Amino acid sequence: MITEILATGDEIRTGALVDTNSGYIAEKLEEAGIAVARHSCVGDDRDALISIFREMGGRADAVVATGGLGPTTDDLTAEAAAAAAGVDLEENARALAGVEAFFAARGRPVTASNRKQAFLPRGADMLDNPVGTAPGFAMQIGRCTFFFLPGVPPEMRRMLENHVLPRLRRLQGDVRQHCMVKTITTFGLTESVAGEKVAAVTREFPRVKLGLRARFPEIHVKLYLNGTDQPAMERLLDAAVSWTTAQLGKSVLSTEGASMPAVVGGLLRSQRATLAVAESCTGGRIANWLTDVSGSSDYFLLSAVTYANAMKTDLLGVSPRTLELHGAVHEETAREMAAGARRIAGADYAIATTGIAGPSGGSAEKPVGTVCIGLATPDKALGRRYCFPFNHRGMNKSMFAMTALNLLRRALTPEGN
Amino acid sequence: MITEILATGDEIRTGALVDTNSGYIAEKLEEAGIAVARHSCVGDDRDALISIFREMGGRADAVVATGGLGPTTDDLTAEAAAAAAGVDLEENARALAGVEAFFAARGRPVTASNRKQAFLPRGADMLDNPVGTAPGFAMQIGRCTFFFLPGVPPEMRRMLENHVLPRLRRLQGDVRQHCMVKTITTFGLTESVAGEKVAAVTREFPRVKLGLRARFPEIHVKLYLNGTDQPAMERLLDAAVSWTTAQLGKSVLSTEGASMPAVVGGLLRSQRATLAVAESCTGGRIANWLTDVSGSSDYFLLSAVTYANAMKTDLLGVSPRTLELHGAVHEETAREMAAGARRIAGADYAIATTGIAGPSGGSAEKPVGTVCIGLATPDKALGRRYCFPFNHRGMNKSMFAMTALNLLRRALTPEGN
Repeated sequence: MITEILATGDEIRTGALVDTNSGYIAEKLEEAGIAVARHSCVGDDRDALISIFREMGGRADAVVATGGLGPTTDDLTAEAAAAAAGVDLEENARALAGVEAFFAARGRPVTASNRKQAFLPRGADMLDNPVGTAPGFAMQIGRCTFFFLPGVPPEMRRMLENHVLPRLRRLQGDVRQHCMVKTITTFGLTESVAGEKVAAVTREFPRVKLGLRARFPEIHVKLYLNGTDQPAMERLLDAAVSWTTAQLGKSVLSTEGASMPAVVGGLLRSQRATLAVAESCTGGRIANWLTDVSGSSDYFLLSAVTYANAMKTDLLGVSPRTLELHGAVHEETAREMAAGARRIAGADYAIATTGIAGPSGGSAEKPVGTVCIGLATPDKALGRRYCFPFNHRGMNKSMFAMTALNLLRRALTPEGN
Repeated sequence: MITEILATGDEIRTGALVDTNSGYIAEKLEEAGIAVARHSCVGDDRDALISIFREMGGRADAVVATGGLGPTTDDLTAEAAAAAAGVDLEENARALAGVEAFFAARGRPVTASNRKQAFLPRGADMLDNPVGTAPGFAMQIGRCTFFFLPGVPPEMRRMLENHVLPRLRRLQGDVRQHCMVKTITTFGLTESVAGEKVAAVTREFPRVKLGLRARFPEIHVKLYLNGTDQPAMERLLDAAVSWTTAQLGKSVLSTEGASMPAVVGGLLRSQRATLAVAESCTGGRIANWLTDVSGSSDYFLLSAVTYANAMKTDLLGVSPRTLELHGAVHEETAREMAAGARRIAGADYAIATTGIAGPSGGSAEKPVGTVCIGLATPDKALGRRYCFPFNHRGMNKSMFAMTALNLLRRALTPEGN
């Protein structure tokens, strides 16, 4: 089966927006054992769309396309798909009902332009969009089945999972190949060092394929296996995961693909422990990550984002003398911030960050990338200093936040993993 | 001139790596007035490469291609380009000298696999790579001039600038087209309503092209103009921006492309005012956004992320009676949270959020998507309730955070914009 991916939209064509959808779709398809032959992108141009739909219709068996399903005049996908297939657009009853229900649930009238979204090529099979107004659709153009999805990532992702992957698996037919994948999440190694440590997995387990993914600042190590005998595959892949995990040592967060905030949350939950956070340079990023995990209210009590020094003293009880002697970015300040957050929240554990994310604020002694992390536990409170090489505010905030969570993770892990 | 971009490599094809090169190249080409017709990606496969080189050679005038120039066996670009053009590979003296100089400068011997990089299609024009071992090359396939560059971003960027852009400008000839773009950021309208309001801009200003971009929950309206006379274009685009802004009314955040946190930060800075935040359901997202803006420490003092109810009373001074009577998600709770944050931080303004981001925690009376926002100013403190239709934790957190910032923005805007 020849499968291709198409992104549409002037923003991607002109480089105003980096296309992350195509990579995401490719990864999900490859994980499902469906090889991707090619990606393409064209802009919001009727002729360019018709031309590429016809090309793909002549050479591919399946295409997953994103974008151009919105309600505005530069959303041309349905019109161009109809023209490429030589059919008319017609109001799709299920699509209209979906759009009407979306607006009715919100007590708002359906606009004329949203009604346009219910016009699909004749014969198209509407694909329900549970999180937005734009329905997708599947249809045949030439020899190829096209799946048209909205370009908004959360909508696209949900519809890919619900509608497209099951149908692609059916299209692929009786090739009963399974593709299994295990994801080992790590923090603390660079991509190249992690790669060197695990490269020999394909020699130890010749059927296993290895992939490294930088999800900054985590590195995810993926092991893929194709085959037909699921129980045997499971055993082989488990053995490969054990071997790989042993090479990676203490940098391993999870062998089930879990990211740091979920791993830390799981440790807190299983120990019935609670957490408070005091954030200066991370500016709420730790709290934002922790609360992206559903159910985090079970263990997360408070983050005091004390950007101003006065808040560090007044709210967290950091000693003015400490700030005067050492400044805001210091191990002792971080230690007192963590101890203060733990005390005011009545939490079992607390972490704290104070550092210089940049681009300004660095000095020779404390350059951009410097962070002090505090940790308070039922037994102790400590502060540590780190310096990272990034000259990028967002990367530093993420690296600082991850380092603080990692210090907590290791304190919560019995063997000090 | 028909110009296309091609990325090659299995990592991009399979989604292991997001292709940032193509977007970067597209942006640089469009800035130089060279319209990009299409992007494509194929993997490290000799037949797939030959096939797409021939296709492009038949339909495009220029192609900028990245990847596949490295020293390993899956680097097949030169071989496939030679096959597509019907010529042999031969050792290129300039390329070999470049590779040898690179290794000599580092005191390392040239390996056999690096020597392979000096073999280029006969007749190809070597493009010097000052930062890596892989030389690029330019050559004709069919009617089209191909520029082959390495996939490593810093190498590609330097060579695009040094070699490709000057040659593309010459190929394009004396049509010195510029492309100008203005971005109007908005919040509060759906994409479809915004689209209807501004659709007529292309009738009022026939040379202007319109694009709408959902950067959830902001909607960005983009106006594009191509031409040769920059001052005249500037005037025309300014008039189109004024017309469009008038249609969009109070939903306009910025006509310079600024996002909500930067706009709110700018207003606070210009009024020498300070801000405190109290976050429950947004879990630190407001603070994280505000502190992504460099220099935010000038006005942002504190966010108290009070996930636990006890923190709302102990830290922010919300009355236990209010929580008992109304619960955590209520206008009065939000109002008291904002007033408390303003008081403890000694800030001029404060905003607060308390709501139900989901997926759990909803009820008939307060469904998932309900949020109460508090605002405290030097004159007053108030609470407001909103209900959003999203059944997605991340989308709700973003919508709640944006709504709170928007309430503050309007309080800070003289005419209550």
